[in-house]
Amino acid sequence: MVQLFDDEELHRLYAKGSMEIIQSPSVFSFSLDAILLAHFARVPKGKNRRILDLCSGNGVIPLFISNRTDAHITGLEVQERLVSMARRSVEYNHLTEQIHIVHGDLRKRYDQLIQGSFDMVTCNPPYFKTKAKNELNENDYLRIARHEVLCTLEDVIKACKLYVKPGGRVVLVYRPDRLVELLSLLSLHRLEPKQIQFIYPRIGKDANMVLVEAVRDGKQGVRILDSLIIYNDDQTYTKEAEGIINGRE
Amino acid sequence: MVQLFDDEELHRLYAKGSMEIIQSPSVFSFSLDAILLAHFARVPKGKNRRILDLCSGNGVIPLFISNRTDAHITGLEVQERLVSMARRSVEYNHLTEQIHIVHGDLRKRYDQLIQGSFDMVTCNPPYFKTKAKNELNENDYLRIARHEVLCTLEDVIKACKLYVKPGGRVVLVYRPDRLVELLSLLSLHRLEPKQIQFIYPRIGKDANMVLVEAVRDGKQGVRILDSLIIYNDDQTYTKEAEGIINGRE
Repeated sequence: MVQLFDDEELHRLYAKGSMEIIQSPSVFSFSLDAILLAHFARVPKGKNRRILDLCSGNGVIPLFISNRTDAHITGLEVQERLVSMARRSVEYNHLTEQIHIVHGDLRKRYDQLIQGSFDMVTCNPPYFKTKAKNELNENDYLRIARHEVLCTLEDVIKACKLYVKPGGRVVLVYRPDRLVELLSLLSLHRLEPKQIQFIYPRIGKDANMVLVEAVRDGKQGVRILDSLIIYNDDQTYTKEAEGIINGRE
Repeated sequence: MVQLFDDEELHRLYAKGSMEIIQSPSVFSFSLDAILLAHFARVPKGKNRRILDLCSGNGVIPLFISNRTDAHITGLEVQERLVSMARRSVEYNHLTEQIHIVHGDLRKRYDQLIQGSFDMVTCNPPYFKTKAKNELNENDYLRIARHEVLCTLEDVIKACKLYVKPGGRVVLVYRPDRLVELLSLLSLHRLEPKQIQFIYPRIGKDANMVLVEAVRDGKQGVRILDSLIIYNDDQTYTKEAEGIINGRE
């Protein structure tokens, strides 16, 4: 049983699989970015391991990765409406033992989030610089999720650094046009990029997403993994993309 | 007519084309890196334009790009033996009007190299960090060309910054495992990366080269171009790689 508001719907998380998630076209729906981030993340295993997902939205990343680990997963989300959606999805999938959603701002400190205690921190941060912070409408859910209204890239990276263990992993999805800034900031905060994958919409086009795994206090030296192409020329998914989107449960 | 030392040979620059270059297996032979750098560089055109190639070796980059522009090209090379090879190749190809090879160290200043005067600066720098600078053998040509014996990555980037015009382009080929350092240093010295291409030896492998175009005082924002794969599974060149290697004259 699940309580849904008028603008909400239940969606399958993977095309194949039983997990479902509460979405809303006007509030938040997860996109390919989240699927790719969840797939790219090398998830720590074991009940004593801890994962933190920042900018957690409707809890899509915690839900996705919960089927690959028994580690405890915390999602931190600033928008109350999204926290409500995420918590109801966690309950609906009987995952309240494994996933805990915290309502809060990644620029602030919370007793339940212990510094330097997480084996992995994931984040799908807002991508776009915004000029008009004071024009914010409280119900502008999508804008907060996509634009740097409530946090900048550096705020996100500082929070990753704060919560991840020494030697622990930080995994991000981002826009390649800000790659220089992203890598420089990670390195500056001693989160050393170790693996990078570029996502191309199709052959012959520029990359439109980048996945980065960084290690706190890691040594210099990064691998650029084989790139991933999403669409064939006839608009169908490539074999590789289809395998990731369909998922495995 | 050309004077060749015992260990030297004349090689075709492109598989198709008439230009030839003096090489020596024990001293210096150009590799795929140089071909890709020359192809990637968006070469300024016009007799009043000026191009500088740092770490110029046997002059391979000036020779390659001379057939795509009438701009004046200067090559700077620290090793006297390579300067001699480069100058003889320039003469042999009747390019003494267009290409000028300077014998010098990019960490020093020379009257004939005017600061901030070049429309484009190219470089295929030494890739590998070295620990034993004092073990240097004067005849260790290959080691100087490949290892940071006589200059570090930051020395190279400072020289690029020194010689390129405001708004001019810097074009480099490098190893992807030092990508973070490369992009951070470029950005620090106000050479803003604008286009990046990753080169993969074959599908399913990590990238093993990266090409970067940066613009002095450019705005933030970089394009990640479609990646280039060199070999098919059967060890033949891909169509794209073959087109670049065969060249056009």
